[in-house]
Amino acid sequence: MSTFHSIEWKAGVLRLIDQRVLPQETRYLDYTSAAAVAEAIRDMVTRGAPAIGATAAYGLALTAVHSRATDAADLRAELAADAEILRQSRPTAVNLFWAINRVLDRLDRSGATTIEAIRQTVLAEAEAIFKEDVETNKAIGFNALPLVPDNAKFLHHCNTGSLATVDYGTALGIIRIAHEAGKKVHVYLDETRPRLQGGRLSAWEMKQLNIPHTVIVDGASGHLMRTEGIDLCVVGCDRVAANGDTANKIGTYNLALAAQAHNVPFYVAAPTSTIDMNLKSGDDIPIEERASEEMSHVGQCKITPDDTPVANFAFDVTPAQYITAIITERGVAYPPFTQSLADLMA
Amino acid sequence: MSTFHSIEWKAGVLRLIDQRVLPQETRYLDYTSAAAVAEAIRDMVTRGAPAIGATAAYGLALTAVHSRATDAADLRAELAADAEILRQSRPTAVNLFWAINRVLDRLDRSGATTIEAIRQTVLAEAEAIFKEDVETNKAIGFNALPLVPDNAKFLHHCNTGSLATVDYGTALGIIRIAHEAGKKVHVYLDETRPRLQGGRLSAWEMKQLNIPHTVIVDGASGHLMRTEGIDLCVVGCDRVAANGDTANKIGTYNLALAAQAHNVPFYVAAPTSTIDMNLKSGDDIPIEERASEEMSHVGQCKITPDDTPVANFAFDVTPAQYITAIITERGVAYPPFTQSLADLMA
Repeated sequence: MSTFHSIEWKAGVLRLIDQRVLPQETRYLDYTSAAAVAEAIRDMVTRGAPAIGATAAYGLALTAVHSRATDAADLRAELAADAEILRQSRPTAVNLFWAINRVLDRLDRSGATTIEAIRQTVLAEAEAIFKEDVETNKAIGFNALPLVPDNAKFLHHCNTGSLATVDYGTALGIIRIAHEAGKKVHVYLDETRPRLQGGRLSAWEMKQLNIPHTVIVDGASGHLMRTEGIDLCVVGCDRVAANGDTANKIGTYNLALAAQAHNVPFYVAAPTSTIDMNLKSGDDIPIEERASEEMSHVGQCKITPDDTPVANFAFDVTPAQYITAIITERGVAYPPFTQSLADLMA
Repeated sequence: MSTFHSIEWKAGVLRLIDQRVLPQETRYLDYTSAAAVAEAIRDMVTRGAPAIGATAAYGLALTAVHSRATDAADLRAELAADAEILRQSRPTAVNLFWAINRVLDRLDRSGATTIEAIRQTVLAEAEAIFKEDVETNKAIGFNALPLVPDNAKFLHHCNTGSLATVDYGTALGIIRIAHEAGKKVHVYLDETRPRLQGGRLSAWEMKQLNIPHTVIVDGASGHLMRTEGIDLCVVGCDRVAANGDTANKIGTYNLALAAQAHNVPFYVAAPTSTIDMNLKSGDDIPIEERASEEMSHVGQCKITPDDTPVANFAFDVTPAQYITAIITERGVAYPPFTQSLADLMA
């Protein structure tokens, strides 16, 4: 396990590591309401699809625990209202909706009729999501292990490690498992503009794990494949459609195109909670656009001239044709994904 | 002409706009020695292949003008030594070597035997390079005009405008000429990590010229082609080999791969001074690697953890197969470039 906790629940308080200020500062923030948690997700105090899911589930647990409702119906109404507030925080990662729905479905099925029973049910389901996430990530890593050559040169985009999950990580979890299994690995980390999750967060995690790594600018991936050679690309995902089209951090699609041009295998690490069988293709995935300040500034440093128009897409969609395999905790899906994902999700 | 001068010669002083601090600060720096000019090129006070060439030529003019040599042989020796210092400043853009050699060749051919004659010859050649650059850029823009549709959505990498040249620009010059010719244009500007020449310099230039523009992160180009549609990519170059392989700012190759995947024409704007017929292919072009601080910091803001290894390639090579045409002041070269460039350079 990691030396830090991205998400921690203690006695009715949700503690999140503030990923906006890492690695220069290690700061934890405490939350006691779902509305504040929604704001934390929106502001990217926590980010990464699996971490967002677990955080949102605990957001509902905060409502359950701190509510002043005096009857069960009122508490259920509060939970429904706060679920809606949490759902509004970010549109692309489906884990948010998956986790919220899972908690509410569990509550529905539980038949809990007292405030105390509702509290226990909601908190227990949030804890189940939290605990399962680590096992899911490890299973992804073990399922990927046969695909990782020795002396593997990885290329990775964004951050998909312990910070992006409850612990361990998805795509970085694959690298970590391979490293722990004794394979020699080196990972090139796309710095991942605009929020620099690769240069800040993934580099910080790899350093702590003593996994050899090198940060590159996002534009250098093709050059690196052409001149140094890369064995495989591994990325996470925010939503996978039923046909395998994958929404992930902006820049993923460019990386997939470079991988295709160089015959480098391109793997998506996907907990099944990120697979949205309700969407036929990636065209149906909503792509968040975020504030221009994320691009015009780095920290307090201004980059662009005043009032420069920017387009700040938070995600892109990589069409399934560029994806070699989708690695889940249940197994590895290969093309055609419409069939293989349906089989895995059955 | 622009409202600013990237390079200005006045009474024995070379004045450069400091491109490291734009657009937040407009600062001019004065130079009176070739060694200081070499340092300015290395530090990227001035950058862009054509601007580097003209600046280096004036660097030799500074030597000629300020030398205390008392005979012609000593002055020629000083010029040869300072030419070598200037040549060491940056390895990739061939315009540096082209301009230095052009000045020295002119001097050799001139048969100048007095200090005063040498001074006049060197300065005159530097001024000729300076003046020709603007005409060269305009000719590139006019040669490209038939390739630009109305309502053109351009995608552009790095900075290739007045700042990267003496004035006007190469790839941005194409956009400028189309705009001035009354075509409706919109340019998406790759911000161009790590030095952010697109987000800082190109955005600043486009704003002053009232050319509609939007800054994107480098990783967003494929997404933009897939979802918004881009009509053409235009980029500059630092060195073009005889077969058309093109070295340009890191990230250019990834952009070319995205363009190819979307059937978007990919044009290289190349003054013939940037074409190196001595190199058979791009494999022979030396690729500069620069200091890690360019990646680990933006201004005073630290990004990566302490001691994070980075690979900071300043340029990449786009193989000729991804290039639709190379647009020079003498005409447009199409594949196969080995033939068409040889014809143009003859």
